Amino acid sequence: MYPAPIRNVVSAFKRLPSVGERTAERFVFSLLKSGKKDVAGLIIALKGLMETIVSCEVCWDFSDQSPCALCADTTRDGKTICVVAQPQDLHAIEKTGVYRGTYHVLRGVLVPENPDSLRETMRRLLSRLENDAVSEVVLALNPDMPGETTARFIERELERRLSALKVSRLARGLPMGSDIQYADELTLSSAFKHRVS
Amino acid sequence: MYPAPIRNVVSAFKRLPSVGERTAERFVFSLLKSGKKDVAGLIIALKGLMETIVSCEVCWDFSDQSPCALCADTTRDGKTICVVAQPQDLHAIEKTGVYRGTYHVLRGVLVPENPDSLRETMRRLLSRLENDAVSEVVLALNPDMPGETTARFIERELERRLSALKVSRLARGLPMGSDIQYADELTLSSAFKHRVS
Repeated sequence: MYPAPIRNVVSAFKRLPSVGERTAERFVFSLLKSGKKDVAGLIIALKGLMETIVSCEVCWDFSDQSPCALCADTTRDGKTICVVAQPQDLHAIEKTGVYRGTYHVLRGVLVPENPDSLRETMRRLLSRLENDAVSEVVLALNPDMPGETTARFIERELERRLSALKVSRLARGLPMGSDIQYADELTLSSAFKHRVS
Repeated sequence: MYPAPIRNVVSAFKRLPSVGERTAERFVFSLLKSGKKDVAGLIIALKGLMETIVSCEVCWDFSDQSPCALCADTTRDGKTICVVAQPQDLHAIEKTGVYRGTYHVLRGVLVPENPDSLRETMRRLLSRLENDAVSEVVLALNPDMPGETTARFIERELERRLSALKVSRLARGLPMGSDIQYADELTLSSAFKHRVS
């Protein structure tokens, strides 16, 4: 059995996504082998994270200010809100430079076993929609089962309360540079169904 | 681009083995989503690691004392030293309960691009062998290319300096519960070559 201080860090690392016992152990010994230089570096970085990162009160993204830089940017189009599941999705969309509206970060998708999982984030989104002059909500959720379920749930909630609001979704189809013969059936049939002229 | 405090933790996590940009980002957002409870817990655990874990001056394992509990245990057979690459290997062998000697942790294997990588750990091992009454060294290294290279290197070093010393290796063969028809060729031919009567 490892000494308690090692076991404690193994337990803490195991709380991270997809990190099991063996991976957590490898992390700990890698840190120890660095002569603790990496431990000290990680502690300092984590302290900085804890002390400075807050939730943006508008879009619920993680930021070093609230409202975040993006929500505070008056050149962004406040009439459109793009709903994403994760902060990483927001950053992926920002990298394209194609979208100039604002965001709303759900921080998760609808979990069937826990239908209340999106309650807080939906309350925030609805209060934004009721107060601001928003004309379109773009649902940028993953084209998979949890993403679809979440999108349908949000669509229903929005229709029920704000029938005039335009709700759109990201287009689905063949990814750029892909090969039709290797496309999976669902993608190919979706690309056919939504073909554009 | 993420705020600097987030980027700093992403960089620190990327120093861990097999953690890339995406995984590091998932770790950070998972910590942030826990309401920072997990960040605080990880900081406390890492501080404990940094403040209490030392290298055992005898076997070079990581421990909360030096010499470590195992090296300080006078009921262990000091005449045999089992050489392992990683602290995790030592713990795997201890779990079997089959070995009652002492250990030496290399903290790595021989890297062909850096032949000096084992210099410090070999110096420690040799000084132990010269001072203590050791009669056997068991090389418990992985039966793969880096493990074999390291074992051969250590064997040569030991033969050159301590010709009377017995040097052994862990047996290689079919793992218990395995199926001959699915055994790889190297394992099967090794099991034949080293068959016991």
